[in-house]
Amino acid sequence: MKTLILNKNEVLNYLKIENVFDAVKNSYIDFCNDDVLQPKITSIDISKNNAEMDFKYGYSKSKDIIGMKIAGGFWDNPKLYDLPSGVALINLFDAKTGIPVAIMDGTYITSYRTAAAGALASTLLAKADSNKLAVIGTGDQAKMQIIFHINYFGLKYINIWGRDIKKASKLKLELETKYKDIEFNIYNDVKLACMDVDIIITTTPSDKALVKKDFVKDGCHINAIGADCPHKQELDENLFRDAKIVTDNTSECISRGETRTAIQNKIITESDIHAQIGEILLGKKEGRTNNKEITIFDATGMSIQDINTSYMIYKKAISDEVGISLDIL
Amino acid sequence: MKTLILNKNEVLNYLKIENVFDAVKNSYIDFCNDDVLQPKITSIDISKNNAEMDFKYGYSKSKDIIGMKIAGGFWDNPKLYDLPSGVALINLFDAKTGIPVAIMDGTYITSYRTAAAGALASTLLAKADSNKLAVIGTGDQAKMQIIFHINYFGLKYINIWGRDIKKASKLKLELETKYKDIEFNIYNDVKLACMDVDIIITTTPSDKALVKKDFVKDGCHINAIGADCPHKQELDENLFRDAKIVTDNTSECISRGETRTAIQNKIITESDIHAQIGEILLGKKEGRTNNKEITIFDATGMSIQDINTSYMIYKKAISDEVGISLDIL
Repeated sequence: MKTLILNKNEVLNYLKIENVFDAVKNSYIDFCNDDVLQPKITSIDISKNNAEMDFKYGYSKSKDIIGMKIAGGFWDNPKLYDLPSGVALINLFDAKTGIPVAIMDGTYITSYRTAAAGALASTLLAKADSNKLAVIGTGDQAKMQIIFHINYFGLKYINIWGRDIKKASKLKLELETKYKDIEFNIYNDVKLACMDVDIIITTTPSDKALVKKDFVKDGCHINAIGADCPHKQELDENLFRDAKIVTDNTSECISRGETRTAIQNKIITESDIHAQIGEILLGKKEGRTNNKEITIFDATGMSIQDINTSYMIYKKAISDEVGISLDIL
Repeated sequence: MKTLILNKNEVLNYLKIENVFDAVKNSYIDFCNDDVLQPKITSIDISKNNAEMDFKYGYSKSKDIIGMKIAGGFWDNPKLYDLPSGVALINLFDAKTGIPVAIMDGTYITSYRTAAAGALASTLLAKADSNKLAVIGTGDQAKMQIIFHINYFGLKYINIWGRDIKKASKLKLELETKYKDIEFNIYNDVKLACMDVDIIITTTPSDKALVKKDFVKDGCHINAIGADCPHKQELDENLFRDAKIVTDNTSECISRGETRTAIQNKIITESDIHAQIGEILLGKKEGRTNNKEITIFDATGMSIQDINTSYMIYKKAISDEVGISLDIL
């Protein structure tokens, strides 16, 4: 049986905002419908190389597909090897036979499916007329979150905060060339960036709180995207006290996400978490119910997002005869 | 950066008894020298397809290589799809950059490195003049254990036990054609197969004890290969009471191996385990010390065996310009 190999550019050609948004939406529904087996995410720490490798894997019962994503943060790559710091490879297996049906780059898939998760959460939890967005961070995920949010909201103002003002300016320039009707502003003060916005998205690998409680106005929605392992934190844990908290996967967010710090510091307990996002999509729990509440979406990412997105690409590539088909096993 | 893809036959061409034996020997030494990070083995149960997928992964510090093996038992494959029940794929990553350097079939590697582990344990724990071997099981691993043991011992008699007498006869015929100086006998009674032999090797997926305590004579060495997850058992747990017990990796054998049942039934405690095999190779613990003792080697298999074996193949293939080199990431 053949294994289809898809490279970075072949994968990128199939990634569209709408189809990834749908794949991620279905992932959250699958997860809450108990259609997914996902062992706990594990990591190998390679601190001598300033790197970390994460293993996210799962089984989609309805698709009968097993997926394994090996994804790394190799922070010295840009400086030492002229390579991106984020690298990922996805393997998909037929769960009837165990044969690998596809192997593909997972870097862009990670980037797109994470941005889609943020945009989807905002459509459920932010005010529908949100027009001011603040993004904390200037990397690839900051850019992708902005692009996805522009697709789903009538944004007029986008604030970008970065430690490195050059990187922030470069991102601003790139985006304002493309989106001429939107006003982009850069800040080196998180408070000023967050003041008066409707949606805040955190996308950094910070290990201490950047967004303080008093920076956030009533009715604001926050997507906590960056913090996905125990030593990371971007939000002041006090923000969790009165907020409506939604997770992608409560058990992972409690052990690896932003929610972890809030629980550990006894600001909230697990029972204060309002919902997993799939429960809102299924109509089992409410999303935003008024214009005053502060909502937080905490995401650590799930294997089923990678499986559903890569499987969608695999099916399209097979149909278009794209990629290289090899007998490996 | 390129990823080298090697198919089943290309991998097989590089698998030789001696080089796999050496790779496995070095793996046990690396493990006991703390050169290896190995998260716990995890599994996904796919019982609706009568299958299971295991994920074995690790990091070799000295090679700066991360390996991930996705290996499955798909028991309906031969019957329904004319495919082998054991399937495996190995991914190797450069731990400096996170780029996948090689992707290869892992089926033969699993088969060879497991047989090498058994033969290596026997060279350390069986009597040097062992000439009678019993193998419980008639599958691929039964055959491979026999072939590896013939290479390291002057075997004269080999007993094969199988539930399916046709499969046992087929294996006997295949082996006696190749090894004309050895007498092969088949049995459908485990007691008769084990009586008076020097080495017993269990290779089945049995879930209840096949080899009883009174079947095993003084001075016998047992390789417990088949039982590698909680519901499996091949040895009577009472065999552990007075035996010298050696594991490949004590923490995994306690949670997934044959040793698990003996501890659970309070026949032994963890402190009764004599050594990890790498400690014997390093001269920190003794192997067999007399001709009377019964020795048991319990193996659940380790990622570093897959990493060292597949890395050896990768280096040879690169040097010989074998395989297909692709830009994936």
